[in-house]
Amino acid sequence: MDIEKTALAAKRASRDLANESASRKDRAVREMADSLELRTGEILEENAVDIAAGRKKGLSNALLDRLRLDEDRVRAMAASMRRVAALADPVGEIVEGWRTSEGLEIKKVRVPFGVVAVIYEARPNITVDAAGLCIKTGNAVVLRGGSDAYHSNRILAEVITGAVMEAGLPGDAIQFVATRDRDVLARLVQLIGVVDLVIPRGGRELKDFLVEHAKVPVIYAGGGNCHVYVDKAADLGSAVDITVNSKVQRPGVCNAAETLLVHADVAEAFLPRVVKELRARNVTLFVDERTRAALGSEAPAELEDATAEHYATEFLDLKMAVRVVDDVEQAIDHITQYGTGHSEAIVTNDATVGRRFTERVDAAAVYVNASTRFTDGAVFGMGAEIAISTQKLHARGPLALRELTSTKYVVTGSGQVR
Amino acid sequence: MDIEKTALAAKRASRDLANESASRKDRAVREMADSLELRTGEILEENAVDIAAGRKKGLSNALLDRLRLDEDRVRAMAASMRRVAALADPVGEIVEGWRTSEGLEIKKVRVPFGVVAVIYEARPNITVDAAGLCIKTGNAVVLRGGSDAYHSNRILAEVITGAVMEAGLPGDAIQFVATRDRDVLARLVQLIGVVDLVIPRGGRELKDFLVEHAKVPVIYAGGGNCHVYVDKAADLGSAVDITVNSKVQRPGVCNAAETLLVHADVAEAFLPRVVKELRARNVTLFVDERTRAALGSEAPAELEDATAEHYATEFLDLKMAVRVVDDVEQAIDHITQYGTGHSEAIVTNDATVGRRFTERVDAAAVYVNASTRFTDGAVFGMGAEIAISTQKLHARGPLALRELTSTKYVVTGSGQVR
Repeated sequence: MDIEKTALAAKRASRDLANESASRKDRAVREMADSLELRTGEILEENAVDIAAGRKKGLSNALLDRLRLDEDRVRAMAASMRRVAALADPVGEIVEGWRTSEGLEIKKVRVPFGVVAVIYEARPNITVDAAGLCIKTGNAVVLRGGSDAYHSNRILAEVITGAVMEAGLPGDAIQFVATRDRDVLARLVQLIGVVDLVIPRGGRELKDFLVEHAKVPVIYAGGGNCHVYVDKAADLGSAVDITVNSKVQRPGVCNAAETLLVHADVAEAFLPRVVKELRARNVTLFVDERTRAALGSEAPAELEDATAEHYATEFLDLKMAVRVVDDVEQAIDHITQYGTGHSEAIVTNDATVGRRFTERVDAAAVYVNASTRFTDGAVFGMGAEIAISTQKLHARGPLALRELTSTKYVVTGSGQVR
Repeated sequence: MDIEKTALAAKRASRDLANESASRKDRAVREMADSLELRTGEILEENAVDIAAGRKKGLSNALLDRLRLDEDRVRAMAASMRRVAALADPVGEIVEGWRTSEGLEIKKVRVPFGVVAVIYEARPNITVDAAGLCIKTGNAVVLRGGSDAYHSNRILAEVITGAVMEAGLPGDAIQFVATRDRDVLARLVQLIGVVDLVIPRGGRELKDFLVEHAKVPVIYAGGGNCHVYVDKAADLGSAVDITVNSKVQRPGVCNAAETLLVHADVAEAFLPRVVKELRARNVTLFVDERTRAALGSEAPAELEDATAEHYATEFLDLKMAVRVVDDVEQAIDHITQYGTGHSEAIVTNDATVGRRFTERVDAAAVYVNASTRFTDGAVFGMGAEIAISTQKLHARGPLALRELTSTKYVVTGSGQVR
């Protein structure tokens, strides 16, 4: 396919979109919400085709969960678009401004990137969130969804492109690309000067592919090997709630916790309680020797021994590794070694220990006394998100409106020279 | 050489540096300034070795100018460090913060990257600016200077590392690497998890090398094919000053202008004046047909015909291409086609035209009625700069303190779960 032509069409559309009024962009995003609700029937029909194919293909439960749409989830997509429309337009914001000693007025102004390519896999709601966030920020978007969600994404792209045109914006601002051809994908991410930003949302294979082939800037949204550390100064009831929630509330997503670390001093008091709750929710546990010792006679029969590989694994499933540590330093070391810089939580009422943890743990989001599950653009008040960045360049954490913008300096003088 | 060991030493130092107090970091940066002044004699001796070698090798005047140090330039380096020390520490800044509906307190806190690798060529002052800015922001730095400046960079690195240790900070936070081995360089920029950011400051060859080999994030500081557009509503006296200053004040640097665009309506009034001034400063001019026609009998004999290649070239020398355009739209189109997104200027008193230009020209810095030469970290009030980014990701324009930081979300709750 002619990916260059597709990207150039997006580039042309982006030039006009960059200076569109907020009111027209918001109208387009609200039209998306309305159209999604109006055409829910069609969307679910197409999604059913993907789900049936996925079952036949033997996709895991976690993947099928990501792929599945129902009326509630379509309503949630529409609600997400209405939240996005209601937020302030970041484009045109004067981030800061000052006057130099020479009398130059310098303004740092927020501007769109231009063309954003989003490369994702199973979740169809990304089609909608990415398009809505890009249109709102005056960016054109090239959407390359996974083949398992082909029918769902195609109908969603059709619905939202129609909505954008309905609002009087160029339909070319949304380009849906369904290719499975890796060569086409490689060419897309090498279009220097046309594609301004690539946001991948997928596994290690996609990341490795982009590290190898991309020549335009990429924001890597890495996996989430997230931890909950229960300190000796924790409220143990709260620690049980936070651990269980972080693990089981939606195990297939990147902000779910994968390893539980427990301070040795509270291991005997805490571990029997939390293990009971986790086992009641069918969580398979991989535990170290000290955990087994702390559980003593209350150790369930199904416990498995934890290996370094378990600690390094993002299970995305009802599985959890458990380790007893000497103190917060050992917990920090463990997280430094195994963590992926996504979301890390400590449960403690000791302010000094909490501060130590938040300062030394190098991650996009560090929690004190709350579930790792909160790392999310909508929860953070950003309306929606395209992905959660675990890299430090440009944006860390949820990628939403502001993260889809760059800046330029606009400098006004009255004839100044150096 | 064992580049992995070097980078790991920097990484270890960065962990301690990340939480250092501002006062100690500032002391280190002020020590750098003092040591540079104290040891100016040694520094100039070593620089003379590089200059002599460069002459023998036949380096261009522009390159020799970049390489050369004298007492004033060493004093300027020291002054730059004192400015950096006097600025506020960006690390620990709470960029923003809010409370969610669930009662979570979310703070977005500025943090260092960790290890920053700066890869540069001839200019020795980058050794000092990069190290000072990195230390101030709690980053360790790997400095890889060009071989033409080897003796200068080696002594500068020695001086500033001594200063850092004098202030009680780890000397490993500054790593000077003089290798010319491309394989070593390739390994450096592939150290995922160790090197957090690469900032190249060099030509196309270095950029292509990094696009090919880098696996860690890179901020590309591209070249500057900068333009001055003289609108029909320009003050022509001011337009002459701005054009001449943009071209000749320091032609070897990236914010110098390379092409002059002139509105057809003022071509006959403006071009003879500006050409006379540029020729008086030995600027070689490459002009289009309309420029020649506008000059008429006042055209100097030495004019050469402009080709598309001239318009695409960053001369970095006393050379300038000239073109007459129909209006601001054609000027914008020319800049969109040939510009590198660095610094672009319009001279006009028409507010509507000025706004059109600043909105549609996609560059790091867009000037109205001022010289392109102002794009500079120190001039912008940032103390110093490592480079000027022409990419849109993370930072655009001068890279100084804030641009050397990332952020993390610190989220505090009281037991919240989803």
